[in-house]
Amino acid sequence: MSIATAPAASVVPATPADEVALATVKRGCEELLVEAEFLQKLARSRAGGQPLRCKLGLDPTAPDIHLGHTVVLNKLRQLQDLGHTVIFLIGDFTSLIGDPSGRNTTRPPLTREQIEANAQTYFQQAALVLDRDQTEIRYNSEWSDPLGAGGLIKLAARYTLARLLERDDFAKRFAENSPIAVHELLYPLMQGYDSVALRSDLELGGTDQKFNLLVGRELQRHYGQEPQCILTMPLLEGLDGVEKMSKSKNNYIGITEAPFEMFGKVMSISDELMWRWYDLVSTRSNAEIAGFRREVGEGRNPRDIKVALAQEIVTRFHSKRAAEQALAEFEARFRGNAAPEDMPGVTVHAPQGLPIAQLLRQAGLAPSTSEAVRNIEQGGVRLDGEKVADRAAVIGPGTYVLQVGKRKWARVTVQ
Amino acid sequence: MSIATAPAASVVPATPADEVALATVKRGCEELLVEAEFLQKLARSRAGGQPLRCKLGLDPTAPDIHLGHTVVLNKLRQLQDLGHTVIFLIGDFTSLIGDPSGRNTTRPPLTREQIEANAQTYFQQAALVLDRDQTEIRYNSEWSDPLGAGGLIKLAARYTLARLLERDDFAKRFAENSPIAVHELLYPLMQGYDSVALRSDLELGGTDQKFNLLVGRELQRHYGQEPQCILTMPLLEGLDGVEKMSKSKNNYIGITEAPFEMFGKVMSISDELMWRWYDLVSTRSNAEIAGFRREVGEGRNPRDIKVALAQEIVTRFHSKRAAEQALAEFEARFRGNAAPEDMPGVTVHAPQGLPIAQLLRQAGLAPSTSEAVRNIEQGGVRLDGEKVADRAAVIGPGTYVLQVGKRKWARVTVQ
Repeated sequence: MSIATAPAASVVPATPADEVALATVKRGCEELLVEAEFLQKLARSRAGGQPLRCKLGLDPTAPDIHLGHTVVLNKLRQLQDLGHTVIFLIGDFTSLIGDPSGRNTTRPPLTREQIEANAQTYFQQAALVLDRDQTEIRYNSEWSDPLGAGGLIKLAARYTLARLLERDDFAKRFAENSPIAVHELLYPLMQGYDSVALRSDLELGGTDQKFNLLVGRELQRHYGQEPQCILTMPLLEGLDGVEKMSKSKNNYIGITEAPFEMFGKVMSISDELMWRWYDLVSTRSNAEIAGFRREVGEGRNPRDIKVALAQEIVTRFHSKRAAEQALAEFEARFRGNAAPEDMPGVTVHAPQGLPIAQLLRQAGLAPSTSEAVRNIEQGGVRLDGEKVADRAAVIGPGTYVLQVGKRKWARVTVQ
Repeated sequence: MSIATAPAASVVPATPADEVALATVKRGCEELLVEAEFLQKLARSRAGGQPLRCKLGLDPTAPDIHLGHTVVLNKLRQLQDLGHTVIFLIGDFTSLIGDPSGRNTTRPPLTREQIEANAQTYFQQAALVLDRDQTEIRYNSEWSDPLGAGGLIKLAARYTLARLLERDDFAKRFAENSPIAVHELLYPLMQGYDSVALRSDLELGGTDQKFNLLVGRELQRHYGQEPQCILTMPLLEGLDGVEKMSKSKNNYIGITEAPFEMFGKVMSISDELMWRWYDLVSTRSNAEIAGFRREVGEGRNPRDIKVALAQEIVTRFHSKRAAEQALAEFEARFRGNAAPEDMPGVTVHAPQGLPIAQLLRQAGLAPSTSEAVRNIEQGGVRLDGEKVADRAAVIGPGTYVLQVGKRKWARVTVQ
């Protein structure tokens, strides 16, 4: 790629439709840089019929995706729905090197086959959110290998050490005299070069990626390209509404979980968290969501809105039919037995799980373990709407709706 | 090159001959690191009949070599005379990249042909000092190109930023907030990798190269090789005995200068400087030089020793015959007219040169310019033993023996 002057792009006036698109893209995001530039990109894309190129960089690992991972995918889907192209950039180049610091000797470099298999696994899951036809999968070894040692040196000449040390984690480690290996300084440059190679218009990432995304802007400018905009997305709060969703916190919804599990978990979240999830997980338009908020303000039961969210999520990861069945089953279990809106939330620390009777006592639903056992034997205890028959059942980490008799309820998180 | 444990080298007892070799290698040097290691390398090389590999890195520019440049060549020649192999490492890899910072846009990258022509030019001059048969010429693109971007990243993982910032010039610039481009950090690593690729036993360089030479030691250790020793050489003082020899100071002897010029210039240096030059420029053994010193201590005229040095130098760069002719001519010019041993040294600042009469006055050889003109017209002024006929002659920068009548002498440096 040679160095050239950026072509002077003509300015296209933004229409109200562009403003609506901008609002959709911004919804739920942490930061969009630079907003005016992005509005102009939207306007020019519309006027010229040229989709924007929206990049997401991925490690070629094969995670089991949970709902938290889908926040950024959802944003990409919104961009696809606006007519733009999504690029899944698989960072295979560095994975083929392995961990060059040698600190992680137990993790050998991935093979080409493993990388492609992992990328496919990821893509199959992501395809539940994304439109396959508007998604390109690219591997950065395509341009990083041909770059060569000489090309990497030229790239490194574009950036000063002082600029790289502005990155928070580098600055902190440098100040603390914690070692920074020299190759770590090269990774932001390689990532930025990916944006050059892809002629990216927008790059998405977590908040912690902001610095690296900005490097891409600068390198594109240097290579005579219009710099990409960057969109950072927050981490999704888990079922408890407090901690970030993660497997280790057991406050997650896996996207391969069974429909009823998924439905029930969404129904268990607080109303406040529901609105946050609407912003970050739903593909409904801003206008629809604003309509829901207005209706609840006018007295509609927020439970209905939560059902709509649960159905949307189950439909996405399973099917419309599965969503309907899950709703029917949920209502059958809780029929005449509706969970109250203001259920108390309780967290119990028991990473190995604990017997149901102890859980009832600790959650404040029974005055003693023996009273709890009696309640179970009398058939008065329900977990997620289902009667508990086994007094010795051990409840593992997770979030559950627990009910004793008609009136005692709690949303209990075991962790 | 894979990572392996260094083979456990057997220890060979050093003989007196090894100690003599060590003293020869150390002569005139700034620093030899690590001396005990090097003595062991010498002993093992002798016992195993395996020459040591002595590396000198060179930029592929084509300098006109002066005597100052030959100090390190001379040291290499001493190593060859001890039976070892010299490797001229041409740093073509980075020259093929050009100046990647783009600061020097007027200097385009050298072509492969230019690099090889420059290396040949340099080698032809260096071959006046070195034994061609014991000299390998290598180009570092041989292993730097195949290294690739991935290999360079792995290499960069071997070193921390903090370690690189120990290098004096980096530390200084970092402290002053002067920009350090990231690629500059990679050059010491590339240079160190050259030592790995060459399995170097000893690397020579100027004092300013010490840091980079040490990087080579560490990388070799990492790659399972016995680390190279490093030998730093000082810069040679020029004819004036004060400033380092350089073209811009006009205190140099070019190795292509005519025999008589060369001879005369050596004869013009002070006795003190003569001993320094013996250490750094002569290939005579330590024992011979010690013998000369003893003779002078016992009353021998140091001029004889200076003649021997001048003849050695002219012989090296021209021939034995040319050296004899130069001596004869020198003696003819100064016959019955011997220059005194304790000639005063005078330095005159006149970068554009100045008329001979003014020079005589400023050098204290004439009380006034008009008196100097009279001396010239009377045929009483000699410059390097030759009668000055032209009273308007302009004397450019350089060092000369000036004489007025039989008794007024000075060694005058115009600069």
